[in-house]
Amino acid sequence: MKAVLRRDRRLVEDDVPTPTPGPGQVLVKTLVCGICGSDLHALHHLEHMVETNLRAGAADTLDPAADIVFGHEFSAEILDHGPGTARTLKAGTRVVSVPMAIGPAGVELVGYSNRFPGGFAEQMLLQEALLMEVPNGLSAEAAAMVEPMAVGEHAVARANPGRESVCLVVGCGPVGLAVIAALKARGLGPVIASDFSESRRRMAEAMGADIVVDPAAQSPHAHWEALDVPATLASFSASRLMGRSIRDAIVFECVGVPGLIQSLIESVPPTARIVIVGVCMEDDRITPVLAINKQLSLDFVFAYSPEEFTATLLRVAEGEIDVAPLISGVVGRSSVAGAFEELARAGGPVKLMVNPALA
Amino acid sequence: MKAVLRRDRRLVEDDVPTPTPGPGQVLVKTLVCGICGSDLHALHHLEHMVETNLRAGAADTLDPAADIVFGHEFSAEILDHGPGTARTLKAGTRVVSVPMAIGPAGVELVGYSNRFPGGFAEQMLLQEALLMEVPNGLSAEAAAMVEPMAVGEHAVARANPGRESVCLVVGCGPVGLAVIAALKARGLGPVIASDFSESRRRMAEAMGADIVVDPAAQSPHAHWEALDVPATLASFSASRLMGRSIRDAIVFECVGVPGLIQSLIESVPPTARIVIVGVCMEDDRITPVLAINKQLSLDFVFAYSPEEFTATLLRVAEGEIDVAPLISGVVGRSSVAGAFEELARAGGPVKLMVNPALA
Repeated sequence: MKAVLRRDRRLVEDDVPTPTPGPGQVLVKTLVCGICGSDLHALHHLEHMVETNLRAGAADTLDPAADIVFGHEFSAEILDHGPGTARTLKAGTRVVSVPMAIGPAGVELVGYSNRFPGGFAEQMLLQEALLMEVPNGLSAEAAAMVEPMAVGEHAVARANPGRESVCLVVGCGPVGLAVIAALKARGLGPVIASDFSESRRRMAEAMGADIVVDPAAQSPHAHWEALDVPATLASFSASRLMGRSIRDAIVFECVGVPGLIQSLIESVPPTARIVIVGVCMEDDRITPVLAINKQLSLDFVFAYSPEEFTATLLRVAEGEIDVAPLISGVVGRSSVAGAFEELARAGGPVKLMVNPALA
Repeated sequence: MKAVLRRDRRLVEDDVPTPTPGPGQVLVKTLVCGICGSDLHALHHLEHMVETNLRAGAADTLDPAADIVFGHEFSAEILDHGPGTARTLKAGTRVVSVPMAIGPAGVELVGYSNRFPGGFAEQMLLQEALLMEVPNGLSAEAAAMVEPMAVGEHAVARANPGRESVCLVVGCGPVGLAVIAALKARGLGPVIASDFSESRRRMAEAMGADIVVDPAAQSPHAHWEALDVPATLASFSASRLMGRSIRDAIVFECVGVPGLIQSLIESVPPTARIVIVGVCMEDDRITPVLAINKQLSLDFVFAYSPEEFTATLLRVAEGEIDVAPLISGVVGRSSVAGAFEELARAGGPVKLMVNPALA
């Protein structure tokens, strides 16, 4: 079958063996697969990612020197069932799945595996038990957006904001936009969104952000006091002493560059919770005593649970989250390398997708 | 009245004016006052502390170049009432209080103020509304331990551990011991305690720690798997997949030196919550991506609420927390400087107290 591979830190088109479904597995045809920021990073820095995963205690299943077919934001169509499957969903059914499969070495991530090709290949192996049928009428492209949107659902579920919370989303790339969508799907607000890019700010508005800020023109922290969140320790103490009802701040860090966590520690209101969704791969510097004085918390989040993935599929299918504005285009195999470059541009397209059946 | 002052970054004995209680205030006689690790730090680095507080958004009320009488861990006896007081507690009543008073510039910390002398002076001004009567029979020394023990109560309340939590306390100085006491007062366990000092490990046992570790001999993280906390991402994923019931880890960082937060990020189990109670005054370096992969949280905590202070007073008064083992001695004014030096020694006494009426 045809695929786009990572080989020698480059993306190349090549034929790879069509996989055979093992026990509990199904063979699917990839309909479309989004390109993730992690793929952009992994193209050049997969060795570092693998090393980091091992330091974090992950199982050692991925050889970055061998070929890998990226692609974990996919929708697909069932082609065939392996042995020992229930076959509840018939061939031809359109499905999505959390990108995990079980091989001889245990659980692997589809799209970051030497054994399980991702969605930049024409066909994939998935676990039957993890499949979810795409509800009628949802396009293949919208279904493929469920995976990145589930990242926002997970971050918001972890933060668990209430009616009294005021949320700030810093960075309106795919991750920040997913967070905004998950907040607004819960009917929460006001949501403040901040991004240097004009086009990303328009996307934030499309996802429902209530206040949209260009940080080059105005600090995104300028709005706290007006929204009943005491912005300084002095105003916080005064409000508490005077029994004034106050709201709490939750800040989603959706950029992932060194220095940003510390800049938030300096700028957020007392008792704010900072949810770290953007992945900063480099070491970073913080001033703990400032975080202590302000009694901040830092919640580091990653991916999502199968339940959060399902909840996101339903929200997208029922129109509570409109992903259409985020999809910038679908490319064929020969254009994947160029799409990676386009996505790396500041303020570039939000989401480009690959249809691996297209040349 | 007689007092020990901070002047020119040294501790000196001198006479200071006896204060007059303003509206809502009472004049009290200091019975005894503990020396806090913050006092040790502030003696040499108060300028840096003030600068940090201002960066965190605190009100600007303290001039580190002027005289300050330290002491915020006190018990006292009411001498006189100011105008506009209810006088529910009569002169002669023994009291404790959160160390806050209201001056012309707003709320100030008793013991870190140019206007409100702390417990290293013979007399203090306190707010009548914040006074709590010391229940019968509790010694002046035990009552003065309520303030530092409330720091542990606050840290544990913020972490909110449950029956399924396994708690590790890193560092068994006054803060770590207060955390252990608050955990055991809730009937929680097992509690693992870690300290390089033999005498501090004995104190941890006295406070009720279930497993006590010398980190020079064994990693305090060696016990997780045996206590049903999956220690690595691989074992965590395997446990989840196999539906095995697992326990969660909460780690209290009670040391406050650079590098310790990162060492915990590297060593704690996936999904652990790290509660930062030790105050690291210097900048520190972390690797965010490790915390992301393991989905950790860092909760930075400080001080306590009035409610937590009251709860601690009751626990101490009712014998749920036995503070007697922690009190190493009471010194007079001329021995305060020496006591500061003794407390700064690694593995030195846990708590020395000042009786400012003694020469």
